[in-house]
Amino acid sequence: MTTPTLPTVTPRSADAVAPVLAAVRAATPLVHCMTNTVVPEVTANVLLASGAAPAMIDLPEEAAIFATVASGLLVNVGNGLSEQHEGMRRAAAAAQEAGTPWVLDPVAVGALPVRTQLARDLLTNRPTAIRGNASEILGLAGTNAGGRGVDSTHEVDAAIETARDLAAETGAVVAISGPVDVIVSTDRVTRVTGGDPLMPLVIGTGCALGATVAAALGATRGTHAPHDAVVAAHALFGASGLAAAEETSNPGSFRTAWLDALHALTPDEVAALVTVEDDPA
Amino acid sequence: MTTPTLPTVTPRSADAVAPVLAAVRAATPLVHCMTNTVVPEVTANVLLASGAAPAMIDLPEEAAIFATVASGLLVNVGNGLSEQHEGMRRAAAAAQEAGTPWVLDPVAVGALPVRTQLARDLLTNRPTAIRGNASEILGLAGTNAGGRGVDSTHEVDAAIETARDLAAETGAVVAISGPVDVIVSTDRVTRVTGGDPLMPLVIGTGCALGATVAAALGATRGTHAPHDAVVAAHALFGASGLAAAEETSNPGSFRTAWLDALHALTPDEVAALVTVEDDPA
Amino acid sequence: MTTPTLPTVTPRSADAVAPVLAAVRAATPLVHCMTNTVVPEVTANVLLASGAAPAMIDLPEEAAIFATVASGLLVNVGNGLSEQHEGMRRAAAAAQEAGTPWVLDPVAVGALPVRTQLARDLLTNRPTAIRGNASEILGLAGTNAGGRGVDSTHEVDAAIETARDLAAETGAVVAISGPVDVIVSTDRVTRVTGGDPLMPLVIGTGCALGATVAAALGATRGTHAPHDAVVAAHALFGASGLAAAEETSNPGSFRTAWLDALHALTPDEVAALVTVEDDPA
Repeated sequence: MTTPTLPTVTPRSADAVAPVLAAVRAATPLVHCMTNTVVPEVTANVLLASGAAPAMIDLPEEAAIFATVASGLLVNVGNGLSEQHEGMRRAAAAAQEAGTPWVLDPVAVGALPVRTQLARDLLTNRPTAIRGNASEILGLAGTNAGGRGVDSTHEVDAAIETARDLAAETGAVVAISGPVDVIVSTDRVTRVTGGDPLMPLVIGTGCALGATVAAALGATRGTHAPHDAVVAAHALFGASGLAAAEETSNPGSFRTAWLDALHALTPDEVAALVTVEDDPA
Repeated sequence: MTTPTLPTVTPRSADAVAPVLAAVRAATPLVHCMTNTVVPEVTANVLLASGAAPAMIDLPEEAAIFATVASGLLVNVGNGLSEQHEGMRRAAAAAQEAGTPWVLDPVAVGALPVRTQLARDLLTNRPTAIRGNASEILGLAGTNAGGRGVDSTHEVDAAIETARDLAAETGAVVAISGPVDVIVSTDRVTRVTGGDPLMPLVIGTGCALGATVAAALGATRGTHAPHDAVVAAHALFGASGLAAAEETSNPGSFRTAWLDALHALTPDEVAALVTVEDDPA
Repeated sequence: MTTPTLPTVTPRSADAVAPVLAAVRAATPLVHCMTNTVVPEVTANVLLASGAAPAMIDLPEEAAIFATVASGLLVNVGNGLSEQHEGMRRAAAAAQEAGTPWVLDPVAVGALPVRTQLARDLLTNRPTAIRGNASEILGLAGTNAGGRGVDSTHEVDAAIETARDLAAETGAVVAISGPVDVIVSTDRVTRVTGGDPLMPLVIGTGCALGATVAAALGATRGTHAPHDAVVAAHALFGASGLAAAEETSNPGSFRTAWLDALHALTPDEVAALVTVEDDPA
């Protein structure tokens, strides 16, 4: 005799990587992306290479509708005009209402006022996941007034406690990007080691990761815990970065090789390439 | 003794492919692109590789001016803010008034309300060509309320009758993109076979085709029938997709190889690579 | 016994190329880019490959703040909506007030009215450098009503006298892009020979140069004369174009090779590849 249960976290996060990525490829989740002016094209290409489908919809009236039919929603506050910001507010509210998993990427939050207010307001719509660098996570939580635009001036570890508080407050999985990515839930901290120093020299490798997190959440809604979905998206990026670095040491070629690897690597190959470790409880 | 005549359709559409593409390279048509936030860069690179020149002009006041001096205009309703929509209305009206050939790309029309109203309103400005997938053509005509954002959920053949009605109603050549592209005028249906399954995994291969259609229309205004220009642009994309697929099976590399092929293939090579067939009358 | 002095122009402009580029790599200048809708991604990738860091900030309130903390600011009037234009006005004023070096790229100025008025108004904020093609420089100065959008219809040499007047009037270094780039200050004219005919077939090679000029100005503020910084940025583009042309003769591959070269070439290699010559005084 069984009763419906919410998905639980896989005992070892590493074990969920391949199943989550296989679920993305099986479902082709439609990801509603509201993102900054710099990365829409690379974000779309990353989603397509990863087995998902992108749709960029910013107009408030349309965004509120689309957030209810998409598999997942990304809200990246990196560089938008006022009308897009209004669309983000309406879409986040609609996603919350409809139960659409959604990701907040707090680009340069803490350093600039309009987006900082916007991002903090959006927390009331309870994002499923939050992804940023250490400075941005600290900035979102209000414990950091600095940052250097999109560049993190803080180490990842310094943000873990803040991330845990943020997770407790909002219910979100909080992912801190860095040389080692740290994914923080109230009950688990997971470290994903992969990637390459060339990745930050290709614009959008962070922003597109937020969209891929939304894809993984959308494809596994009800079957995997959000924590596992967030980890798997980071594992995919770590593995594709490692694979691309085998091909080249320059950023133009790296970008091409990275997109190729996102498409070519099987879920099992991804799981084999990166290191995914849970912190001791 | 001759009197001026409008250009007539080439007896076999296939025979017009190379001459139209040669005319594009000879004229370097300036294409005014009003397009969505995702594809401006790839659209510009495609036009340059194809022998045309891009200019993205969205501000209403400037768009209305530029539509009268450009060789051709693309209006892609994929993702724009209100001010750009106002610019599209003014530019389409100006293009009609000035006789500038213009292309309507009804991205996700039928699925979202603001763009659907916009696109239908713009039909009164009598686009020279309309290019979309089957769902979008059905959505534009009002015979489809569904669609999945930019992904077609309908087969191409199901949209041919609707396309013919749309062509009769608006005077436009209607191109339905799919594994086989179908170009529909009131008096002819032409099928272009080429491309590769990787093409839909590179964002902008559809949107940039709309811009290339505008380039072909602009370069051959008065010398070739619009139907032939639309077919030739589709042939160029089909051939470049086939050529790129010879080089790679991954989307990052494919994108590069496809842009290379757009530039490298001669008009005669394009005509030799793709299959262009008119339906029996 | 020394008193503080403003940096003076290096006796031979060629001698400043490597030191300026080394300074960029040492400082990782943060460049605030307010640019058109087509080139944000390639601009960001170019800055990263060149050793700088990009931040695109368009909202008026945020732009006015960020222009005071960035190392340099680019204002490219190529295609923006009204709110971005307002942001440009506020950012340019803030940059002037704070002493942040800033670059004006007058895309299609002279051909379209809104941006022409905007660009001329911004001259009152005394840009540190102005970069455009010959038609745009003439259009900015009001001596040209023509132009063909972003394509120059004028020869570079025809614009030199106008550029000298503009430099005298505004205090800016004026760079005229063409097959040979000409950098004009009130007391010096320098010609940079490099690049490749494929460069204009890759969108953004001009616009991203404006951002790289801002990076060079920001990294060498107080240590090198603006003229030397502008020359060095042009030398980097000329050299990377030459290097990329060694790899390919098609534009998709060229774009990749060019980004690779921007990253791979050392300052000394850049200086060795291009020809930098000052006109006789």
